[in-house]
Amino acid sequence: MADIIIKNVYVLTMDSYELTQGVVVIENGTITEVAESTEQDADQIIDAKGSVVMPGFVNTHTHAAMTLFRGYADDIPLDEWLKNYIWPAEEHLTDEDAYIGTKLACLEMIKSGTTSFADMYIHMNDVAQAVKDSGMRAALSYGLIDLGENRSADVELSKGKQFVLDWKGEAEGRIITMYGPHAPYTCSEGFLSKVKKEANHDRVGIHIHVLETESELNQMKQQYGMCSINLLDRLGFLGPDVLAAHCVWLSDDDIEILRGRGVHVSHNPVSNMKLASGVAPVPRMLDRGVNVSLGTDGCASNNNNLDMFEEMKTAALLHKVESLDPTVLPARQVLEMATTSGARALGIKSGVLREGYNADVIIVDMNKPHLTPVYDIHSHLVYSASGSDVSTTIVDGRILMQDYEVVCMDEQDVLDRARTAASGLVERAKF
Amino acid sequence: MADIIIKNVYVLTMDSYELTQGVVVIENGTITEVAESTEQDADQIIDAKGSVVMPGFVNTHTHAAMTLFRGYADDIPLDEWLKNYIWPAEEHLTDEDAYIGTKLACLEMIKSGTTSFADMYIHMNDVAQAVKDSGMRAALSYGLIDLGENRSADVELSKGKQFVLDWKGEAEGRIITMYGPHAPYTCSEGFLSKVKKEANHDRVGIHIHVLETESELNQMKQQYGMCSINLLDRLGFLGPDVLAAHCVWLSDDDIEILRGRGVHVSHNPVSNMKLASGVAPVPRMLDRGVNVSLGTDGCASNNNNLDMFEEMKTAALLHKVESLDPTVLPARQVLEMATTSGARALGIKSGVLREGYNADVIIVDMNKPHLTPVYDIHSHLVYSASGSDVSTTIVDGRILMQDYEVVCMDEQDVLDRARTAASGLVERAKF
Repeated sequence: MADIIIKNVYVLTMDSYELTQGVVVIENGTITEVAESTEQDADQIIDAKGSVVMPGFVNTHTHAAMTLFRGYADDIPLDEWLKNYIWPAEEHLTDEDAYIGTKLACLEMIKSGTTSFADMYIHMNDVAQAVKDSGMRAALSYGLIDLGENRSADVELSKGKQFVLDWKGEAEGRIITMYGPHAPYTCSEGFLSKVKKEANHDRVGIHIHVLETESELNQMKQQYGMCSINLLDRLGFLGPDVLAAHCVWLSDDDIEILRGRGVHVSHNPVSNMKLASGVAPVPRMLDRGVNVSLGTDGCASNNNNLDMFEEMKTAALLHKVESLDPTVLPARQVLEMATTSGARALGIKSGVLREGYNADVIIVDMNKPHLTPVYDIHSHLVYSASGSDVSTTIVDGRILMQDYEVVCMDEQDVLDRARTAASGLVERAKF
Repeated sequence: MADIIIKNVYVLTMDSYELTQGVVVIENGTITEVAESTEQDADQIIDAKGSVVMPGFVNTHTHAAMTLFRGYADDIPLDEWLKNYIWPAEEHLTDEDAYIGTKLACLEMIKSGTTSFADMYIHMNDVAQAVKDSGMRAALSYGLIDLGENRSADVELSKGKQFVLDWKGEAEGRIITMYGPHAPYTCSEGFLSKVKKEANHDRVGIHIHVLETESELNQMKQQYGMCSINLLDRLGFLGPDVLAAHCVWLSDDDIEILRGRGVHVSHNPVSNMKLASGVAPVPRMLDRGVNVSLGTDGCASNNNNLDMFEEMKTAALLHKVESLDPTVLPARQVLEMATTSGARALGIKSGVLREGYNADVIIVDMNKPHLTPVYDIHSHLVYSASGSDVSTTIVDGRILMQDYEVVCMDEQDVLDRARTAASGLVERAKF
């Protein structure tokens, strides 16, 4: 007896085939069958006629707790945003704030079809607790900054290590831990080397921001006479254990290094556009075979929501107009970035509907005016759909939302608590 | 006794003030009061606590019936798309198809908060009938192409004129008619002059595509030794009665001409990105004082949905990254483009909540995870919200959707008929 059977549905496996009418069978957190029909029975049968079943999205770069700052400071330059708004606000962020902010982010992600995400932030014990409580899957890291000061560097690194060890494999394996050195311009060479050594020792990955802005590129060239990629490569830092977010200001040589080292990239088009950071050379990275996934970045001034449908559409549009070529980043390729490439970047067995893989699965309701009529499922998912079209979200074989109803947490309670937390922040930080 | 009172709501008037808690009173299709509270009573009281009431969106450029081709051919060059896909399909489009396609478009627009739109297409009697039946407001035009042939030019023009006269002021004034010469590269000089003369005579506006692509710019320079704007200006064509869609390939001189003549522009960022047409110089147009509104363009290969929230966000993002300046096109300015500037472009008394204006009003539900917490209403509407957050849509004082339920048509019937029409098209046109 299986746990769940989803039937009467278009099966977008993100594998080498698709089924216009099929079933997906789930047992013990795993996909056990994908077929046109099944002989099996299950505790729960979901008849999803007129819908698409597909792997849940993997959001490979975010700062979940920052949902509490959503829309707090927009349309201003990055420097001013950080110094006058975000850093002062973060000083007043409590553990409880981080918990409820992450819970809110998980709620939003579950409702819009994201099943896993990679996060780097502070108050990580509370972030991890919220992930555990929500039922989602996540790759979590404590954000490390040393700014060249040895004492604080050691304190930071031990905090990062403690988090890596405490939470590795927690929540029935749904939580993966990583080291999170913030960026090459906020971490010293020596510190980056230490982090790499610890990550190797603990057999975990590394999540880092790389070349998000031109000002990072200029600063690195001035300080080291080379760009961030060259510096990281000289340190022996780059490898398939590294998830590099943004990667906007890359030369062709940098792309070749990323490819050669097997580094995974998280492309964040909405954030890069909103902060006017620039346009990452995604078509060139994809052409060379770099694994490029998609991320929303944080919700403060960067994206303002965590909708991976929006991220897919923006990615597809941005690189078309940037290259003046409408054939660039077709819908199917963008779907891969948001699912299979993301799973590969986090090293998780998700992102494809295949026997033996994690049952991280979503159902998208196609019976909507803006999704009618249907000629091409891929096109609709990338160009016409939005997060609100997801009806059901399953992570690790557990239903978190069914038929638009969130069942893993009390939605209204989370909204109310988030509002209270935001009011408290406003009072303390004098927003 | 008023017809409708919307109370307990954040009133985003798009006028010179806002009310954090207020009421909007509607009577006989008109807004009769906007205030903190009212002494009046009404047949229907809508308590919209936790929501925002604002003017409905004005979509200033679309081809509504093309929803029937939604997602039918994507990720291919414009030429190939037109010649191999769209034109052959349009040959098989029936009057009934155009009716149901437009009905589907109206349904989608009503559900996502658009209350008026400007349309240019064929089978316009059926398009107009669908608008009339749906309850929406629209500025409609029959798309005119002469390609320099005199006989067909006269036939076309008389069809356009017939439509202008037959439908002007129909549907209790909700339908405005315009002339719709397709573009300077598909209409001859002589034809454009004739159209202008007829429009003046009939006292209606003109809706035209201008400089959407670089290839139009090159063709015009080759043919006339000048760009489309210069040609149109030489013909005395340009004035405040002209709605020019796209306007991507403009020089500074062109912008000055548009400003001087009082031409209204419809900016279509998603379409321009998807078809890789280029980036319109919107910040420069706005700086010079050109009235720039927003449009989705058609649903075929251009946008694939009619969500004006998406259009707003894309406009705000695109010009930030294009100029590498995050302060460009702030949220409030983009909201103006989507409401007041659109209404000005169509010459309708909508787009602002003010006494004496059309009761074209929407209610946006803010009690959602992705809209929590709230620091700045404008930011949330532009950067975080989507069409699915609209709970109530009122046009001309009539409720078309209330609390997410469409009451002006049978939603499922429209979806079913649209699917049947699409299947018939596929069969006839051998898609």
